[in-house]
Amino acid sequence: MNSDASAPLPVAIEPEHDRYLVAAVEAGGGVVVPMSRARALVWIGAPNDFPRLDDTIEWVALKTAGIEGFKDADVLDDRRIWTNASGFYAAGCAEHALALLLAGLRQLHTSVLLGWNETVIPPAVRTLRGATVAIIGAGGIGRELTPRLRACGASVLAVNFSGRPVDGADRTLPVAQTDEALAAADHVVLAAPSTAATRHLLDDRTLALLKPHSWVVNVARGRLIDQDALGRALRAGTIAGAALDVTDPEPPADDDPLYSYPNLILTPHIANPAPGLTREMAPWLTENVRRFAAGEPLLSVVDPAADY
Amino acid sequence: MNSDASAPLPVAIEPEHDRYLVAAVEAGGGVVVPMSRARALVWIGAPNDFPRLDDTIEWVALKTAGIEGFKDADVLDDRRIWTNASGFYAAGCAEHALALLLAGLRQLHTSVLLGWNETVIPPAVRTLRGATVAIIGAGGIGRELTPRLRACGASVLAVNFSGRPVDGADRTLPVAQTDEALAAADHVVLAAPSTAATRHLLDDRTLALLKPHSWVVNVARGRLIDQDALGRALRAGTIAGAALDVTDPEPPADDDPLYSYPNLILTPHIANPAPGLTREMAPWLTENVRRFAAGEPLLSVVDPAADY
Repeated sequence: MNSDASAPLPVAIEPEHDRYLVAAVEAGGGVVVPMSRARALVWIGAPNDFPRLDDTIEWVALKTAGIEGFKDADVLDDRRIWTNASGFYAAGCAEHALALLLAGLRQLHTSVLLGWNETVIPPAVRTLRGATVAIIGAGGIGRELTPRLRACGASVLAVNFSGRPVDGADRTLPVAQTDEALAAADHVVLAAPSTAATRHLLDDRTLALLKPHSWVVNVARGRLIDQDALGRALRAGTIAGAALDVTDPEPPADDDPLYSYPNLILTPHIANPAPGLTREMAPWLTENVRRFAAGEPLLSVVDPAADY
Repeated sequence: MNSDASAPLPVAIEPEHDRYLVAAVEAGGGVVVPMSRARALVWIGAPNDFPRLDDTIEWVALKTAGIEGFKDADVLDDRRIWTNASGFYAAGCAEHALALLLAGLRQLHTSVLLGWNETVIPPAVRTLRGATVAIIGAGGIGRELTPRLRACGASVLAVNFSGRPVDGADRTLPVAQTDEALAAADHVVLAAPSTAATRHLLDDRTLALLKPHSWVVNVARGRLIDQDALGRALRAGTIAGAALDVTDPEPPADDDPLYSYPNLILTPHIANPAPGLTREMAPWLTENVRRFAAGEPLLSVVDPAADY
């Protein structure tokens, strides 16, 4: 193992080299090498193709934010540091969440479908300004989304695990008070990781806490919503609409009931679109290569024992 | 004329009383009276129905932001103060402009039309974060839009008449340098008043200054764009798309070529939707009633001699 701090950090990029990530490693003071000589591995392939690792690999950088796939494939271990890319992708998720919420409130979906309709559309338009938005699972995405919502004149009600105040939020509640947040909010953005505890976080019972004018936005994971319950709420009009960038399963089957619900906006998991993903990831990788070489704590370290 | 400063300001609301505006007048310390006894008139009717005024009416409050209709009907005079509602509606226009820009960049229109399409949609997605947005005609709407764009990580290039720096904008240029702004911007939001000088501000020549990834947003007036030229740019792909809340004429005819352009998002003039308009206007009216009674300068005073 090369521990000379002044030598470039040897980093492998597998299963194939990517020009944005090669440049990113070099910008961080590293050098791209074969895996046999590497101290760090940047893995941009699928979980099931993940290679057996020698103990010379001290750090593995995964390019996804959600790492359920790697956990399911039993890839993670406690013999090295693992990082995901949640920190970097948070801005893209926050921007997409804002786009979806505004599209729903301002009836862009019905405008696309109905054309210049002055009967149906204007009475259904609502404003984000003055509304209270609950962010359920306010971590990295919540930190990025909060200032965007506030700049639009909305109030932010953050819900996180501890209830420790989220910077810029008008109010932060611990996860145990999620019901209270849902009941107080005009609209809800789901930004929580997918765990056993967050599965079907929105179901018949919790959807009933929302208001007839409420929009639900999901940029996290499809499993957070009981989609059958969502369909019932949309059909009954007990909520105003839902805008989803993630579904369960994904993609939905051609005959998935999702396609039949009124006031549902669906985007194909494009908060951080796959083309150009490594370009988006590059600045984050550069920073982590620099930090690793300098012996500083890395960004977005994964706890293999935690549920997310 | 009752000039007793301690007496409630007598205000007429015509052609019909509106409960939000009655409450707004009273909240500002006024009282609603017939026009024959009023010192101020709140006119919520059409320009062509505007009544002859006695000189006892010292102030007329119009409920619209654009007042071309009242100018065309030769209603405005210099015998009293005229106010429009541009200040108040600016926030709605800014929110709608942001919604339209994000919808275009994030391909919400194609998602609505194509469903879960992983071939066409992801490569076309772009982010607002990191982009430069030119606001052409950065007045009230620009002041509201600038902090929203900045919170999304965009840079703001403002263009106004004088070039006097717009608060929060990264750069402000005078109207004479509009071409330079268009050439430097990734995306363009039109927020200028409709005047002889701004007619067809975007035409074949100026659209050619934009980029293949540029989106054009119009929340001001349809006449600012030469729609035939816009169609040519969209068909040729010299710009990425356009999102319009206003058209010329309005509404577009059923066979208007607008409906045939690719990547055009159209909303039916809903930046400040008509239902609930007086409710939105109410806080602004309350403030102006208070100001008038106190002898303070009013918000949104119209210069009858100016072109807007």
